[in-house]
Amino acid sequence: MAPTYTMAGGEGPNSYSQHSTYQRALLEVAKAKINGAVSSKLDINLDLNRFNIADFGCSTGPNTFLAVQSIIDAVEQKYPKETQDENIEFQVLFNDHSNNDFNTLFKTLPSTKKYFVSGVPGSFFGRVLPRDSLHVGHCSYSLHWLSQVPKGIADKNSPAWNKDIHCTGFSKEVVEAYHNQFMIDMGSFLKARGEELVSGGLLFLLGSCLPDGVKMSETMKGMLLDFMGKCLHDVAKEGLIDQEELDSFNFPIYPAHVAEFKKVIEENGNFTIEAFEKISHANEEFPLDPNFLATSHKVSFGGVLESRFGKEAMEKTMEFIEEKCPKILPQLASAKSGMQYFIMLRRN
Amino acid sequence: MAPTYTMAGGEGPNSYSQHSTYQRALLEVAKAKINGAVSSKLDINLDLNRFNIADFGCSTGPNTFLAVQSIIDAVEQKYPKETQDENIEFQVLFNDHSNNDFNTLFKTLPSTKKYFVSGVPGSFFGRVLPRDSLHVGHCSYSLHWLSQVPKGIADKNSPAWNKDIHCTGFSKEVVEAYHNQFMIDMGSFLKARGEELVSGGLLFLLGSCLPDGVKMSETMKGMLLDFMGKCLHDVAKEGLIDQEELDSFNFPIYPAHVAEFKKVIEENGNFTIEAFEKISHANEEFPLDPNFLATSHKVSFGGVLESRFGKEAMEKTMEFIEEKCPKILPQLASAKSGMQYFIMLRRN
Repeated sequence: MAPTYTMAGGEGPNSYSQHSTYQRALLEVAKAKINGAVSSKLDINLDLNRFNIADFGCSTGPNTFLAVQSIIDAVEQKYPKETQDENIEFQVLFNDHSNNDFNTLFKTLPSTKKYFVSGVPGSFFGRVLPRDSLHVGHCSYSLHWLSQVPKGIADKNSPAWNKDIHCTGFSKEVVEAYHNQFMIDMGSFLKARGEELVSGGLLFLLGSCLPDGVKMSETMKGMLLDFMGKCLHDVAKEGLIDQEELDSFNFPIYPAHVAEFKKVIEENGNFTIEAFEKISHANEEFPLDPNFLATSHKVSFGGVLESRFGKEAMEKTMEFIEEKCPKILPQLASAKSGMQYFIMLRRN
Repeated sequence: MAPTYTMAGGEGPNSYSQHSTYQRALLEVAKAKINGAVSSKLDINLDLNRFNIADFGCSTGPNTFLAVQSIIDAVEQKYPKETQDENIEFQVLFNDHSNNDFNTLFKTLPSTKKYFVSGVPGSFFGRVLPRDSLHVGHCSYSLHWLSQVPKGIADKNSPAWNKDIHCTGFSKEVVEAYHNQFMIDMGSFLKARGEELVSGGLLFLLGSCLPDGVKMSETMKGMLLDFMGKCLHDVAKEGLIDQEELDSFNFPIYPAHVAEFKKVIEENGNFTIEAFEKISHANEEFPLDPNFLATSHKVSFGGVLESRFGKEAMEKTMEFIEEKCPKILPQLASAKSGMQYFIMLRRN
């Protein structure tokens, strides 16, 4: 059930690092919010002097290290050492699929870290930690990935068949299928975290979503996905991808709307929404640079494409993206804004 | 400080699997002892319905999975489900050096496992888990590895210089240097576990040691190490290893005597020795088969030799071991017995 791709981490200068710099800018903005949240909203029993932090969808670093350090810094500020009988010990649980490269993660741990490290393999759509064992959870840019391509989407005979590569917004049935899958997956995510978090614990969610009323196909990311679809079809024309196979291919991703997020959180019932904010930062949208766009696509989608269509087809697609994207730059410039979200939930 | 080698795991039919079959026989014998121990000696507060088990020096499996399952089975037998308000949730913490292949470990987890998985990278000579967070610890065939080759051993100008490759028993100074290092390392191991284990928690130690009064050089394992030393010198003669470098090379291993184990446990003061037994099983010593001996050496020492002298030298050494070992079989047959130990400690 769980998807089997991973982010393309740390393989050469053009891969993860450039893309991760972009996400890091968002983490920096989030840091201040996390600090304020921990200070004012965290309200847990610290009798055991043990504090557990988990990052769900940690990939291989280094952003995960920055994120958890933000949380630790905030907790240490809230509970200064001089007020404790015994110092709080932090344990950080790095979670991702069992095919994530934990070896790299473990070998690149910050030498200055002052926490116990634990790698937790498994899909975050299910339980990965013991009941009531987590104080603060964090999940950054992972929740637009669904557990699977929704049923019907890849089936030519279904009314929900999506003949485009991905972008929702053109057909009611496609939108509905993606919406339903998101509600199931996000529901599973919240159910699991609700069991793992202690009462009063906090869950920070960061990522991309859509403002209500904006269609994915109207945003830059949606347009870029459509554009990648066209490039894949061009690669198929060159014989590197089987057309039949491409027709039944889609990405298991869905940037939900604000209202969808709020609804699924409400349905779960275990959390109070303490914050649901739009994060702004210097690079509001992807920079309109062909090389950056190709790199960014490779990091986000290269793994899926390579495992499905092979390395040559994946590389040809990225080549086409870089080569052909100047043509769509004017269209991109007129796109509606997406939204980078910062959500803070408190476990009731 | 920590050694940077690992076991050669899962690389082809002749590597780990044959060797691990041998260790598995011991684990089977230990299973019954563990069951009895948990039933009669485990006495902990299970208010949280959470049970944490750690395997220190887990390598890449599969033996670690058998070991932790033995413990889980025993705990479930002691606390039957029908007597619990809420079912106990197990979390297993697999610990090894940060350069251990955790990716393989995570990809080969038993599909039937009913526990939460956590990989914990770091040297077990220091703390790797939070205070008072562990209920049962397990460490199998890892404690004969020291944190480093003792000072002086590799220095030609020191009275403790060991011109033999490893085997202790010939020089008083060498024996003393190894003994001191063991006391420091085992002391560090026990200090860390003492802080991690809850009061009443159990620590199971399995491995090879020496009966009091028996010198390492008199045992089959000692003879084999001496023999490997001779093979390394033969490889140096062929120009594949620098003789100077070989003269200052030694393995950081030391199978301690029973009395040494007991002394360091007593000095730590946090544990009660509930059992210190000799384990017997069908394959009491290594089988006297050249191919098995070569494989076994490759698994145990191949990693160290390769990282120090290169792949070619390591392989030539293994070739010599297989080729030349028939000559020493008569000597091996007259060796004194070593000892496979099963130690159970209870945290006071």
